[in-house]
Amino acid sequence: MDQTVVKENEKCEDLDLKGLHIIQNSELFCFGMDAVLLAWYASRSVYLKTKVLEVGTGTGIIPLLLVGHERTKKIEAIEIQEVMVEMARRSVALNGLEDQVLIRHGDIRSNKLELAYQNYDVIISNPPYMRTNHGEHAKGDSRAISRHEVMMTMEDLSDFAKKRLKDKGKLIMVYRADRLGDALVTLRQAGIEAKRLRFVHPYVDKPANLVLIEGIKKGNPFLQVEPPLIIYDDQGNYTELINRIYEEERYGKIWGPIHLDKGLQP
Amino acid sequence: MDQTVVKENEKCEDLDLKGLHIIQNSELFCFGMDAVLLAWYASRSVYLKTKVLEVGTGTGIIPLLLVGHERTKKIEAIEIQEVMVEMARRSVALNGLEDQVLIRHGDIRSNKLELAYQNYDVIISNPPYMRTNHGEHAKGDSRAISRHEVMMTMEDLSDFAKKRLKDKGKLIMVYRADRLGDALVTLRQAGIEAKRLRFVHPYVDKPANLVLIEGIKKGNPFLQVEPPLIIYDDQGNYTELINRIYEEERYGKIWGPIHLDKGLQP
Repeated sequence: MDQTVVKENEKCEDLDLKGLHIIQNSELFCFGMDAVLLAWYASRSVYLKTKVLEVGTGTGIIPLLLVGHERTKKIEAIEIQEVMVEMARRSVALNGLEDQVLIRHGDIRSNKLELAYQNYDVIISNPPYMRTNHGEHAKGDSRAISRHEVMMTMEDLSDFAKKRLKDKGKLIMVYRADRLGDALVTLRQAGIEAKRLRFVHPYVDKPANLVLIEGIKKGNPFLQVEPPLIIYDDQGNYTELINRIYEEERYGKIWGPIHLDKGLQP
Repeated sequence: MDQTVVKENEKCEDLDLKGLHIIQNSELFCFGMDAVLLAWYASRSVYLKTKVLEVGTGTGIIPLLLVGHERTKKIEAIEIQEVMVEMARRSVALNGLEDQVLIRHGDIRSNKLELAYQNYDVIISNPPYMRTNHGEHAKGDSRAISRHEVMMTMEDLSDFAKKRLKDKGKLIMVYRADRLGDALVTLRQAGIEAKRLRFVHPYVDKPANLVLIEGIKKGNPFLQVEPPLIIYDDQGNYTELINRIYEEERYGKIWGPIHLDKGLQP
């Protein structure tokens, strides 16, 4: 691998997955566990022929994980910030995945967005979680754009998904649990019905901080609240499920639509 | 206790709580664990001076539990079915609680409902869960009225709560988890924001079947997803929390706004 592609403030992180690496910049938004959980959660809906787009890819972590876990041979992602697009493209290149992962630069709010963005089976997104007051963050603050609703709100994402998904196509996302009400209401307004929810609790006796949501365009209004996803056991160690998500190669198949163990499938 | 108040098809069940008993009729709707969990969940919002109404009380189980656990000295309940009202009143009488529990007969959808039903701090309800097509159930089918949305829908309950709660008053309910989307959307349309959710899972690795919801009139749109409430452990025995809810007298205080143990408070 060509380490010369790594610039100042950047590091090249080993994904412990088929030798894949990803570039992260300590001055910009870095991916966290939420992105890994989202990629895993989406993996059961991604087959080799699924037409899939990730919205707001940032570092490009989600496409790299889905390709690395052999869920798909081809995935598109869109990102509004040029600095992130450029870095994600370098990550794709250093893994030699230019034929499989297409990182595009664009704004999902634009009506001029090219017609190529149509008829997706699955749209994946880890959107900004934080509400923001207009003007609170400078538009040039890259981390604020990734975290706060400066350039993409739930409404923007839902409207985009409504227009660009096939009927019965899926919008799969991770969101802050305390904004669940906003998410479900906004999705329904866009004609997308939440069909599966999986709450992420740091410990079994603590409130959820995140929720994984699978919405279906023109779905009926019944949903399943899946088993809680617990991060740490009562000793403070990762639970079996988290270990398996991070180290599938060691523990056996856990990504994809294979229901191996009760409670362990995505 | 006067056992002569018990009629054909009825039994008198011991609540294992300060000698309280309740009449149930095997031909009518009988209360289940959902009602007990709801009463416990509501108990942290019920203080001695809280003005509280239960909507659709059925057997009267929830007022009896809240009075039995000394959460309140006075509670009102309303029920649309005369046959249930009459039976619940006999349960209240056989426990000698006529001064504390007032069971009223009425229809929350009626605009003529007397003005006494105003300014509640808390409205509690275990509403019918099942969607119904008009005419599917005969109006005379008492169990269908208790289970299906024949005579009260989520919209009816939300509209009633909107009109009859104080600002910042609480609507506390139990609902089918798979109808969470409908519940949150309908509540928000009525100006009631879900503020706390607690999902009830039969086992930690199974989907939730119920959800406990606390909504606040004119609340802001952030909510807390509390720790999952698990009914059985992996041996098939009740979890500690369920044992404590059912047998507070034996295990120590678990009803009310006292945070004894992490994860165990309502």
